[in-house]
Amino acid sequence: MTQRFAVVMAGGSGTRFWPASRAAQPKQFLPLGGDGRETLLQASVRRMAALLGEQQVLVVTSAHHADLVREQLPTLPALNVLLEPIGRNTAPCLAWAAAHARRRAANAVIAAIPADPHIGDEQAYGRAIERALSAAEAGPIATIGIVPSRAETGYGYLELGPELSPGVRRVAAFVEKPTRERAERFLKGGNHLWNCGMFCFRADALLRAVDRHLPGLGAFVRRADAAAERGAEAALVAAEYAALEKISIDYGVMEKESDIVVVPASFGWDDVGSWAAAFELANKDASGNAGDAERLALDAQGCYVRAPAGKLVALLGVRDLVVVDTGDALLVLPRDRAQSVGQVIEALRSSGRDRYV
Amino acid sequence: MTQRFAVVMAGGSGTRFWPASRAAQPKQFLPLGGDGRETLLQASVRRMAALLGEQQVLVVTSAHHADLVREQLPTLPALNVLLEPIGRNTAPCLAWAAAHARRRAANAVIAAIPADPHIGDEQAYGRAIERALSAAEAGPIATIGIVPSRAETGYGYLELGPELSPGVRRVAAFVEKPTRERAERFLKGGNHLWNCGMFCFRADALLRAVDRHLPGLGAFVRRADAAAERGAEAALVAAEYAALEKISIDYGVMEKESDIVVVPASFGWDDVGSWAAAFELANKDASGNAGDAERLALDAQGCYVRAPAGKLVALLGVRDLVVVDTGDALLVLPRDRAQSVGQVIEALRSSGRDRYV
Repeated sequence: MTQRFAVVMAGGSGTRFWPASRAAQPKQFLPLGGDGRETLLQASVRRMAALLGEQQVLVVTSAHHADLVREQLPTLPALNVLLEPIGRNTAPCLAWAAAHARRRAANAVIAAIPADPHIGDEQAYGRAIERALSAAEAGPIATIGIVPSRAETGYGYLELGPELSPGVRRVAAFVEKPTRERAERFLKGGNHLWNCGMFCFRADALLRAVDRHLPGLGAFVRRADAAAERGAEAALVAAEYAALEKISIDYGVMEKESDIVVVPASFGWDDVGSWAAAFELANKDASGNAGDAERLALDAQGCYVRAPAGKLVALLGVRDLVVVDTGDALLVLPRDRAQSVGQVIEALRSSGRDRYV
Repeated sequence: MTQRFAVVMAGGSGTRFWPASRAAQPKQFLPLGGDGRETLLQASVRRMAALLGEQQVLVVTSAHHADLVREQLPTLPALNVLLEPIGRNTAPCLAWAAAHARRRAANAVIAAIPADPHIGDEQAYGRAIERALSAAEAGPIATIGIVPSRAETGYGYLELGPELSPGVRRVAAFVEKPTRERAERFLKGGNHLWNCGMFCFRADALLRAVDRHLPGLGAFVRRADAAAERGAEAALVAAEYAALEKISIDYGVMEKESDIVVVPASFGWDDVGSWAAAFELANKDASGNAGDAERLALDAQGCYVRAPAGKLVALLGVRDLVVVDTGDALLVLPRDRAQSVGQVIEALRSSGRDRYV
């Protein structure tokens, strides 16, 4: 009998939600869900805790965000929070987390999920995770593939191979972000799924694969295990983590393995890639406006408005704007320009105003 | 030889500049001029001080704004600030100020001006004031009439009578705010000027006219003079001012007098009636944006942006917006809707959010 764990990867940083997401507070720590209160991290942990029990949920995040994680997840055991001194992408993160889980249970099976997607149908999500964990217990790495709803060129795809058991297919190939044309063929063909970065694996199987493909990381894991035995893991991690190769689990391990399976699923997954996406996911008022700000909207529609508590935002005669006030910075842009927020960051940096980034 | 004074009327309140203008900080105390730093009141006092000397400039304002006036006019003698316990429109304000000036000099002549217009051409302004003061020394009330530049329906007009001396005409009639059609006839006809609420008069002449048309106010002035002699004017004003009839000098006195003259003038006068007007008057950057906020404008043009010091406002892909942040409130609206700010105030009141008004 295996023991199941979740590893919630909360180490990301990003600029698409400036000015709310800053170096000090990336996207996963923002309340971008429908009710505008629960953060993406809180929702991710809540869903996995409902499936596996909170004791079984590990969170990997940056040491810079230790306080935020404690604050947002007050009931999560401190031992379940793994703090990276610096982000090294997902391969080091998951190898280290797998080592942790294996120390707790030699037969650990892990569901690894990013902290920041939105999940529309939590029932269907639970069933997909359950199925992928079961598939992983037999040995292979089991990814979750999202049935595409549009010809998206911003995601990687999984090409489907033969069915191995009900609802479980072999992965024929990992496909990089496609051109528009190719994405449209994928959508029509029905043979490709979005790679949403969720996968399940046995800790021992993943660590064997790491040894095969990333031997330096494998050696680190053994040193970490040895250090943990004498209560000195934190010092080892502080000393060595930054020197690990920065590489994703997809590129470093999965694309080099042949025994990868996929559970096709459809559960209202959204990667919440921009303020426009957050607007789409948010609950709207009668005028079609949304956001956590106290609003007064007169002849104003389709606006997404965030502001600190106690601040009133009055909109008159405007349409489809994003207005985000964080106290020291304010962003105003049309919703359909939300993917351009990165330009603001660049312009701030190039004009010497890094303090606002 | 007469002694010249200015009376700057700074008692106004208003809602057109919400959220920057609040009950606590009306328009005249806002830096709405070109450079975004000098307030309208400061500019009005500076111009009159340049003509007459600061000792000769009286400011009448609400007692609620005593601290603001002191702060904005630190070198103005405290004796020159007349504090009304409550606003009673311009007739009580000017009668009381005229009494003050007459106590200082029996032959006082006064230039009375609102604190909140913008003056584009200060040289021409000075010449017009000079001419009106000279005309008033001979006895009549001398108003200043602005040569119209558009068929404005929001102002009252002065109909021109015969010329009495170079640049001085008799006022044939005061005309209420006209219809659009009539305003267009006025503009073409060249026989009507905007009543900009500036006029010059001998203190004794005005007070005699007050006695004729507003005897209650005349009696108050005599009691105030008597109280001032025994050093008890403040107590009298506190006790009696609120009971005075609320009436304008135009309606209560000038329209009833026959001996009114007008100095036609053109000095870039603007009543700064809305955020859109403030934008027009403000210095623009290379993208045509303006305002006192630290801005980052990417593909953003024609926006007027105000924010507290230290706050960055990033605009991306927006045009012709007004964005005003005052810390506890934020307004976003198109410039061409700026005249609708009153609707925001009404909606705030009717939704029980008076704390933002």
